[in-house]
Amino acid sequence: MPAIPILRAERRVPDLLQIDAAAVAEWLVQFLRYECTHRRRITKAILGLSGGVDSAVSTALAVRAFGAENVHVFRMPYKISSSESLDHAQLVIDQLGIPARTIDITPMVDGYLDQEEHPPSPTRIGNVCARCRINILFDQSAKLGGLPIGTGNKTERLFGYYTWHADDAPPINPLGDLYKTQVWELARYLRVPEVIIDKPATADLVKGQTDEGDFGITYLKADRILAFLTQGYSQEKLVEMGFDAGEVALVFKRVEGTHWKRRGPTVAMLSDTAIGEFYLRPVDY
Amino acid sequence: MPAIPILRAERRVPDLLQIDAAAVAEWLVQFLRYECTHRRRITKAILGLSGGVDSAVSTALAVRAFGAENVHVFRMPYKISSSESLDHAQLVIDQLGIPARTIDITPMVDGYLDQEEHPPSPTRIGNVCARCRINILFDQSAKLGGLPIGTGNKTERLFGYYTWHADDAPPINPLGDLYKTQVWELARYLRVPEVIIDKPATADLVKGQTDEGDFGITYLKADRILAFLTQGYSQEKLVEMGFDAGEVALVFKRVEGTHWKRRGPTVAMLSDTAIGEFYLRPVDY
Repeated sequence: MPAIPILRAERRVPDLLQIDAAAVAEWLVQFLRYECTHRRRITKAILGLSGGVDSAVSTALAVRAFGAENVHVFRMPYKISSSESLDHAQLVIDQLGIPARTIDITPMVDGYLDQEEHPPSPTRIGNVCARCRINILFDQSAKLGGLPIGTGNKTERLFGYYTWHADDAPPINPLGDLYKTQVWELARYLRVPEVIIDKPATADLVKGQTDEGDFGITYLKADRILAFLTQGYSQEKLVEMGFDAGEVALVFKRVEGTHWKRRGPTVAMLSDTAIGEFYLRPVDY
Repeated sequence: MPAIPILRAERRVPDLLQIDAAAVAEWLVQFLRYECTHRRRITKAILGLSGGVDSAVSTALAVRAFGAENVHVFRMPYKISSSESLDHAQLVIDQLGIPARTIDITPMVDGYLDQEEHPPSPTRIGNVCARCRINILFDQSAKLGGLPIGTGNKTERLFGYYTWHADDAPPINPLGDLYKTQVWELARYLRVPEVIIDKPATADLVKGQTDEGDFGITYLKADRILAFLTQGYSQEKLVEMGFDAGEVALVFKRVEGTHWKRRGPTVAMLSDTAIGEFYLRPVDY
């Protein structure tokens, strides 16, 4: 099944981020069915529901693809997670009528962190939490016979704004080629509760923290620059076109500093049959 | 730095698995220095020490590359881990004189598993443990300013005999192109304690469990077949050459059923700038 270039960018059109939300939703539902049901013969989807827009959209797509009863979602709060996040996740659960379970990750996370002599930084805590959550999702998938569905969008993938081998680990990801602003548009089309779409995106780690605050640029501005960056435009060209030089530099720096995060491990080659270098095989499930 | 085809196989030579252990060790030390120090400017190595031969060899190589004081190892037992494993890890620690710490993962693992209604299978427990261990190694790496060094060998990588996004997650892996029998040979050259080389390899999850028991074939027999399989020999050809038909079928089935595990996630493509499909960039650290 070839990719449909729904978003094929037309140069010189001012907004490269426009999508046909109905067509995108339809293709992503087909994608989920093709990859899970047809190729892997798995018809159950497992998702972590954070209360944010990405996981709400992925869940809504999974319900369209597999039916509500086959989409199992998990809320996995840590002791410092906001109760608002849990409430917003509940809105999605109620709206879609899907099986849901809440697993408190505090005993798991603190079962490790309490052994540390000094209190870890918020970044370390956030990464430990994210890796505990993916651990649970893989385990629940094994238990229920489902596949973990990813929720990472193109903006955070390009910015490297995620925990390595956590948010990027689910084997199937419907949103990875959509910028955050496009996810918002898709969310509106899928009737994701408005409070979830309208609130500022946050990793929900520190009170008041937002993604855009961490970046130093709004998603809309970042996505507009990224849409040109990924087509090979230089920083100079973008400034010439009227983009703010500081913002362009900021976006390029984030992307260029995180190419390693979009790669697999570096394995020492010793033979002419090194896996992934010479020993290349198509995947058959 | 191009790969040196130290193991370039000569067809029709009966044993494709022979290595020049001294040359391999020297190249792997160079590899570690080049990838960590030169490319990533990181001079500390972080490893989990299981008491098995793979992590003992990776640790010995890291000590040669970075010096004993820059190699931090962690023993991470679960409540059902054997005390023998801890003892064997201690032999390596004492021999190399490296900083070591023991972190009991039982509170972390059971902090989650105790919330399950029914006792999980040994496979589920093993995967949850493996993902807790990599979580800790990434966190300790962040804390200490080091890089996690992987220990997965070519046999287990080809067999898919590891926990996805756990054993295969460390960004640098010196052993991934060496079959298990070659790791044993390298271990002898590096003077890894003999008791570690001679004992049957085990995931140390169930008493008496061994890798070879799980596979249904010895490492030596499997590696001999894999060395031909990865060069494109067919099952029929191998049987013709005198290999046991059942064993050949078993090895091919394991490899062919696990190609998905040696791949990244499947991301829906929506644009002509999909990451890793059209948007391809070299990695610069």
